[in-house]
Order: sequence, then C-alpha cells, then structure tokens
Amino acid sequence: MSDTAAPLSFEFLATDGHARTGRLHTRRGTVRTPAFMPVGTAGSVKGLFPWQVEELGAEIILANTYHLHLRPGEQTVRRLGGVHRLAGWERPILTDSGGYQVFSHGERCRLDDDGVTFRDHIEGSERRLTPERSIEIQQALGSDIMMALDDCTGQPTDRDAAAAALRRTTLWLPRNKAARTDATAALFGIVQGGVFEDLRRESLECTVAEGFDGYAVGGVSVGEGREEVQRIVALMGPRLPEAAPRYLMGMGRPEDILDAVAAGFDMFDCVIPTRHGRNAQVFTRRGILNMRNARHKEDPEPIDKACGCRVCRNFSRAYLRHLYVAGEMLGPLAGTWHNLHFYLELMEEIREAIAAGGFAALRARRLSWLEEGEQT
Amino acid sequence: MSDTAAPLSFEFLATDGHARTGRLHTRRGTVRTPAFMPVGTAGSVKGLFPWQVEELGAEIILANTYHLHLRPGEQTVRRLGGVHRLAGWERPILTDSGGYQVFSHGERCRLDDDGVTFRDHIEGSERRLTPERSIEIQQALGSDIMMALDDCTGQPTDRDAAAAALRRTTLWLPRNKAARTDATAALFGIVQGGVFEDLRRESLECTVAEGFDGYAVGGVSVGEGREEVQRIVALMGPRLPEAAPRYLMGMGRPEDILDAVAAGFDMFDCVIPTRHGRNAQVFTRRGILNMRNARHKEDPEPIDKACGCRVCRNFSRAYLRHLYVAGEMLGPLAGTWHNLHFYLELMEEIREAIAAGGFAALRARRLSWLEEGEQT
Repeated sequence: MSDTAAPLSFEFLATDGHARTGRLHTRRGTVRTPAFMPVGTAGSVKGLFPWQVEELGAEIILANTYHLHLRPGEQTVRRLGGVHRLAGWERPILTDSGGYQVFSHGERCRLDDDGVTFRDHIEGSERRLTPERSIEIQQALGSDIMMALDDCTGQPTDRDAAAAALRRTTLWLPRNKAARTDATAALFGIVQGGVFEDLRRESLECTVAEGFDGYAVGGVSVGEGREEVQRIVALMGPRLPEAAPRYLMGMGRPEDILDAVAAGFDMFDCVIPTRHGRNAQVFTRRGILNMRNARHKEDPEPIDKACGCRVCRNFSRAYLRHLYVAGEMLGPLAGTWHNLHFYLELMEEIREAIAAGGFAALRARRLSWLEEGEQT
Repeated sequence: MSDTAAPLSFEFLATDGHARTGRLHTRRGTVRTPAFMPVGTAGSVKGLFPWQVEELGAEIILANTYHLHLRPGEQTVRRLGGVHRLAGWERPILTDSGGYQVFSHGERCRLDDDGVTFRDHIEGSERRLTPERSIEIQQALGSDIMMALDDCTGQPTDRDAAAAALRRTTLWLPRNKAARTDATAALFGIVQGGVFEDLRRESLECTVAEGFDGYAVGGVSVGEGREEVQRIVALMGPRLPEAAPRYLMGMGRPEDILDAVAAGFDMFDCVIPTRHGRNAQVFTRRGILNMRNARHKEDPEPIDKACGCRVCRNFSRAYLRHLYVAGEMLGPLAGTWHNLHFYLELMEEIREAIAAGGFAALRARRLSWLEEGEQT
C-alpha cells in the first residue's frame, strides 16, 4: 500500500453468504458494488455519448490502455487534461494494463522477464511494454484504478504455460507497485494460474502478500469450459481479502456474473452487452434473442416486456429487426442501449437482493428463467 | 382541396420582406416555420434515437417512401400502426413520393405517361410506381404530409428534357389528388421546369390551378450552378401562393436556406447535416471543418465556441478527431448531433429574426461570417 492516504476505500453495506454489497470510494466518486463496468475501448463506450452511459446508470467505465496509448497517445491525453476530460466522463475510470491487448492485437510479440516487445497493429512500429511503462501510461491517462501488468499469455489448461506466466506475473508485482508515483490512483494486482488450483492459490498468496488496493482474477473464461470457470471463480472469490474490492476480469454473461457475485466478487467488465448489441443479439430475462430473425418481422412486442428501458418503451421487435436488416446505425445503437440497461439493471437487482438477504433466491430465479429459455 | 376539413392550416405570425414566419398546423401537431426537416431515410434519422431528434428541437422529419416501401414494406408498417408508432416519433412526418429514389437507386427504369417501371436495388424485383401507387403507399405509411409523384428525370439545363418532365408532372397532378382517400393527410404539389424561367412559371401555374395543401419546388440544386439555383429560388418563392406553405426540396447548405427564406420559402430538408456529420464535416458559423484534419490533434477547443450543443459543451476538437480517426461510432454520432443542432438553431434564429423584423441583418451577418471563412 502507498504510504499516504489510501486512494480507495471499500465500505461494506451487507453480505449474504459470500455475496457482498458496498460502496467503493474513489477519488472521482463512489461506485456501488457489485458493479458492472461498460467497456470504453478508446475512451468511448461504442455508440453512446457519456451522458447516455450516465443515464443508463453506469458509475464506472473501463478504458483500454493499449488503444489509448496507440491513439491518440497518453501524452496527448495528458496534455488535454486526462482521459476524463477528453471523453467527457467525470465518474471513475478503471484502466487495464495494456498487456491483454498487446498479446491479442500486437504483432511479433517477444516476451522476456523484463517486459514485452511488440509491433502495434496500426502503424507496425516496434514498442515495448514493461510494468513501469504500463503504470506510467495509466498515470498519464489519469486512471482512477490502475491494473498491474501481468503475463496473461498462459494457456489456461496447459500447466507449464500457466506456471511460466504465473512466475513472470509474480516477478512483476513489486515493479508495478514501485512504479506508481500518483498516490491518489488505486492499483489492483491480478491473480493468474489457469485452471490449476495450486497455481491459483500460490498466485493469490503472492499477490496478497505484495499488497494492493484491490484484487483481480485474470485469465478466466479464455477458452476453458464453463465448469472450469465456475470452479476457479468459487475457489478464488472467498479466498481474496475480504476488506478489498474483488474484480473478475472480462466476465461475462448474466449467469456468470450471478455465479461470481455468489462467490464474493464485486466488480465486472465485459464487452458482451455492447458487442452483442451491435450484432443484433439482445438480452431478455429468458435468454438472448437474435433480432435479425425473420420471426420478429411483424412482432409488435418490445424486446422484453419486463424491461423499462427507452428502447423497450418505444421500439417493437419488428422495428429493431427492420433497423438491423436495413443496416441502419440505430439498430446497433438500440441494441447497445438495451443490453447495457439490462446489465446495469441486473446489478441493481443484485445489490438490492444482497441488502435484503435474498440474493440466493434472486440468483435461483434468474437462472431458472434462463433454463426455460426463449427461441431466437 | 379536399371536401372535408383542411388537413393542414398555415398561420402567419410575421413577414419581413418576402421572408415569413408562422405555424403549420397538421393532424399531429404544429411546426414552426421556417422549418428544417431532418431526413429519416428508413424511418430513423441515421444515428439518432427519436427522443434525441426531439431534444435537438426538430418538429417534423422526412421519411423516404421508396426505402420504406422496399423495407419493411408499407403493409408491414401499416399493420404495425404506421410509421410514427414504428419509429417512436409522434410529431409530424412528411413523406416524399418515392420518385426521386426510384431514379437514383432503382435499376432499368422505364418511364411512360402512366408511371415508371423499375427493379429495386435490394432484391432486383420488378416494381411499378404511379401517382396512384405512390399516394397509396404514403397513406399506408401514415404520412401527415404527402408529396405528389412528379417526373424528376429532367436534366435541369436541358430544355427538352425539362419540358418533357414538366409535361408528365403536370399530367400526373390530378391523378395524385384523386388518389388521396385520407382527407386528414395533406398533399403537396411539386413545381418542376429546370433552370428555364418560362417552364418554371408554367409549371407553377398548372400546379396552383390544380390546388394543393402546399407547394414544393423540386429539381433544384441537382447539378446546375449556385447562381442558377439562386435565380430559380428567387423567381419561385414570391410567386407561390402566399397562404400555403412553400417547400424547397432537398436544400441545402446554411447559405442556401438563408437565400430561400429571403425568397419566401418555409420548409426545407437536406441530408447534408447528417451525411456531413458522419463524414467528419462539421458546421461552424465560419464554415465547415474537417475533423479528421491533423491540425485538430491537440486542439482543446470545441467545434464552435458559440455553440451550446452537448457535443460542443463536452467534447474538444481533439477528442472528435480521435474518434473519427480511430473509427469509433461516437465520432459520426457526435458530428450528426452537432450538425443537426447547428441547422435547427439556425432555423430558430431565422424565425426570431423575421418576427423581430431583422432577417436581412441576420442573413447579411451569417453570410459575411461564411465569407471570412475558417481553414479546415
């Protein structure tokens, strides 16, 4: 931890089994947990103005360090007053370390114990990312919650690869911490270890021993099966420090979030609601609908009769299908709006259920509805 | 005119030279004039929810009959309660006749004195449009202001072509009127005649003699020069019936609208603000800026310091450039928002200036600012 005042505090309101609800106080305001963070890749949540993201009820967004580092560049962002002023978003922003995108978008990645060299996917120029550089970039962006650079290359089901990535991740922990010069920005450590229980436990111990403002679990839902994911989530959640926020990275579908909240996780991010929305996949309490499907052609009903979002109050399935099929921009915008509303409303219901001691019942109800399903 | 109560009434508030300001009362509410109608091609103004179009201050939108006829089809629209309910827009909608799109998008068009046969650009199926069919489709859509089908094929500077198109347009006038069965929907006639003063005068006389709820001037700004446009606009405006609304179709840039208001026109539509917005061309009082230009890279100023729109209040030129260059959806959305705000605010200023007897001064001021210009 920093020697000065804590950059973040986590206030418990209620617990219900392992599930907890509380308030995460950051330098840019408070986030109610469990919280879902819409993904604002290059500073914007795709297809939404920041005031729309706020209207939808998001209290924190995630921004991608890799994308902002390449375009417009963190020094440009810094000179323009930071990513909040740039993007017109005054609430908290969490930034990832950039590592995940380096390995998924970068070319000719060469990893060593000091960091990673890669060619960026836009200009092809050679660049280098190290723990120090990642924190430097995140600070220049003005992140409120920074993520430690980890080695996220390990295949989750390959023990040797998971162990190698874990070793490097552990090696980098103190370097991430030492690189922080802005004591008001929080820093989270990331637990790796693939599907291997002993590796996960070892990673957790090392990360907690180093000491961070919050703890994330990474490398989950990256190709392993749903049962494996549930096993790791249930293993990690209750073992992470109780007093700090727990963040399950990159997850997930509504059922994944319900599982993870049950295991004690507080924070989530995922591209699914926005990406699915752009692709005509919209969420209902009984599953996902494909709005391009011909059966919606003359359906006057909204996506979800139980949904009170502006899209469901104003647009029929027939209109949404027309917009997607005709290639109108408004289709993807409406799908994004509805899906984010769906996720953020789910989080609200989760928080209320935990506070009322009824989370298990809520979870059982939502999962049973999903099992009943709906044809797309 | 219809034998029943008029489907539309035009209330004068003030005149200033030829310029007039008033209120157009339709069955779905009132439109303050001079009015700009954002173009909602397939029922949606590209990139905007209907409540955003309303927030921007639009009181009427234009929908394209051709596009809605092909997708989702006017009978589907009718069964779903009409285009207003479909698109979630409760205010007035003007529909074009479909003719312009048949000739610009349709394939293998064969025109005869009865109508036009064409293959649609989506499925390639053979279709036919006649005055009767156009009115039938517009009524099925639920249009508040319908446009008569005209022959808009005439090259504006080719006298023979303009005369032939005018002959057919005149021939179709009574058929359009006779086809109307919904006496609460207004019907406008269209004056053609290219750049030829005698043809324009003849077309105007025939159209007025037939009698419509309002009068439009078509075939302007379709390739002829700016001076020719100004000449026809100045010729037509004051000669159209004073008591009826006057609509200049498909125009135009802010300076074109200022010219046309000076000539006594009341209604305008144009794809420029929305299309330019999608293409990073944004309006300022001193001209158009290309937001992709490198000189905006670190510019912390808004598009237009004098603009109070949400985009100018929240986003810098630097951020907008970043959004366009990075291919983020929010760039085109922000450009569309700002440009429509710019147009609708201009109309508001025009209405206020006419009411205050200061339209000539407003026009001179706006045109002189444009002449001073701004680099893009």
